[in-house]
Amino acid sequence: MTTTDAGPPYDAELMAAVAELGGAMRGLVEASVATTVDADELRAAADEVRTVTGRLAASRRPATQLPSLDDPVTFRRVYNPVTGVGSPLAPPLVIRAADGGVVAEATLGLRYEGPPGFVHGGVSGLLMDQMLGAATIAAGLWGMTVHLELDYRGPLPLQTPLVLRARVAEDAGRKTLVEGGIALASAPGQPLVEARGVFVVPRSDRLEAYFGAITDAAGRPRPPGRPTDATALERD
Amino acid sequence: MTTTDAGPPYDAELMAAVAELGGAMRGLVEASVATTVDADELRAAADEVRTVTGRLAASRRPATQLPSLDDPVTFRRVYNPVTGVGSPLAPPLVIRAADGGVVAEATLGLRYEGPPGFVHGGVSGLLMDQMLGAATIAAGLWGMTVHLELDYRGPLPLQTPLVLRARVAEDAGRKTLVEGGIALASAPGQPLVEARGVFVVPRSDRLEAYFGAITDAAGRPRPPGRPTDATALERD
Repeated sequence: MTTTDAGPPYDAELMAAVAELGGAMRGLVEASVATTVDADELRAAADEVRTVTGRLAASRRPATQLPSLDDPVTFRRVYNPVTGVGSPLAPPLVIRAADGGVVAEATLGLRYEGPPGFVHGGVSGLLMDQMLGAATIAAGLWGMTVHLELDYRGPLPLQTPLVLRARVAEDAGRKTLVEGGIALASAPGQPLVEARGVFVVPRSDRLEAYFGAITDAAGRPRPPGRPTDATALERD
Repeated sequence: MTTTDAGPPYDAELMAAVAELGGAMRGLVEASVATTVDADELRAAADEVRTVTGRLAASRRPATQLPSLDDPVTFRRVYNPVTGVGSPLAPPLVIRAADGGVVAEATLGLRYEGPPGFVHGGVSGLLMDQMLGAATIAAGLWGMTVHLELDYRGPLPLQTPLVLRARVAEDAGRKTLVEGGIALASAPGQPLVEARGVFVVPRSDRLEAYFGAITDAAGRPRPPGRPTDATALERD
């Protein structure tokens, strides 16, 4: 069974299974940092976790080979640590085009804690780098981060609905300037974190040096680059 | 059985079990993003993962209650998403005082991927926010991030030894300026990511508003603040 979005067809059953495991893993990660069970129970859980690891490690891809569900040209990346449906690290953000830029919602659990009760400042940086990059893609642009800058007006509480936004401020050819922020969903006009980023398309010789060895699951070269359109993002 | 570091005594057996589960979880996270097993196997793994989640969810702490192993004054945080021995999200970094600042080593797996083959730019921000903050603590200072800024000179390859450094550039009372970077361990003098941060101690009324509800596992108030010393960090 195959399905298409903006990118090449993919195996919809495999996509559903990757998303199911990703969701289960995110639940386990959160439970593991919030639990107060005793040491015996923790060790028993570790044993079970290692058993699952053995099952999944039966076959694995090398770092130069993209997952079969991925398409770097339309930025379908199922294990991206911010947006990947299969990533245990990701909230995951569902980023959609809106208001001339991109927007996403998130409610962050204890696993993202920095100061007690609040989101780790670096987690805001992680999420905003992805949001800013997604804004370039939504605008039909693309680039690698060369500068990222954040101002923190106040701490972001855990377990509280947040809204993240980003939009291209200036398209200067190979270089794109993007800005955005994170606010409480209950006060979306008052961002608690403000972010600015600069994204640059590497020159062709560098693109080749960086990504020349990257292939899709079938072994065909598959470097990232500027998409011809940005329909991989959900549209309002 | 209890043990002491710079902070109050803790249950060493529980600490070992938390670290064991954390290590097992990190192995599972990496296996889950690198696996090429089929959809049936992924769904079977998801079933097993949900079973472990049920075991750990049998009892859990509220967001306002620190883990029993934690001490925010000496910054012992076992589930910190960058340094926590129990965190499935953390590499984890082992940050130690050295060269008038702090240093850590890391080799990052596929779970931290951004552009194919390279570390996600936002992950560098996550790690450096922690490194810069740790440099303030190592200097006997502390603060919450009010500004974070990164320049990316080149992408950081996955599965390659990296070295991270940070040091206080200026101590201006409540405000601390810190700088640092990430380099290949094979070329430590040429940082590929450079970072600067500003950390500020919130005024006492804000500290109370932010952390007034935070307690330790026994229910005693336990807000973070500037430590009297920084011996919670390993020293060279």
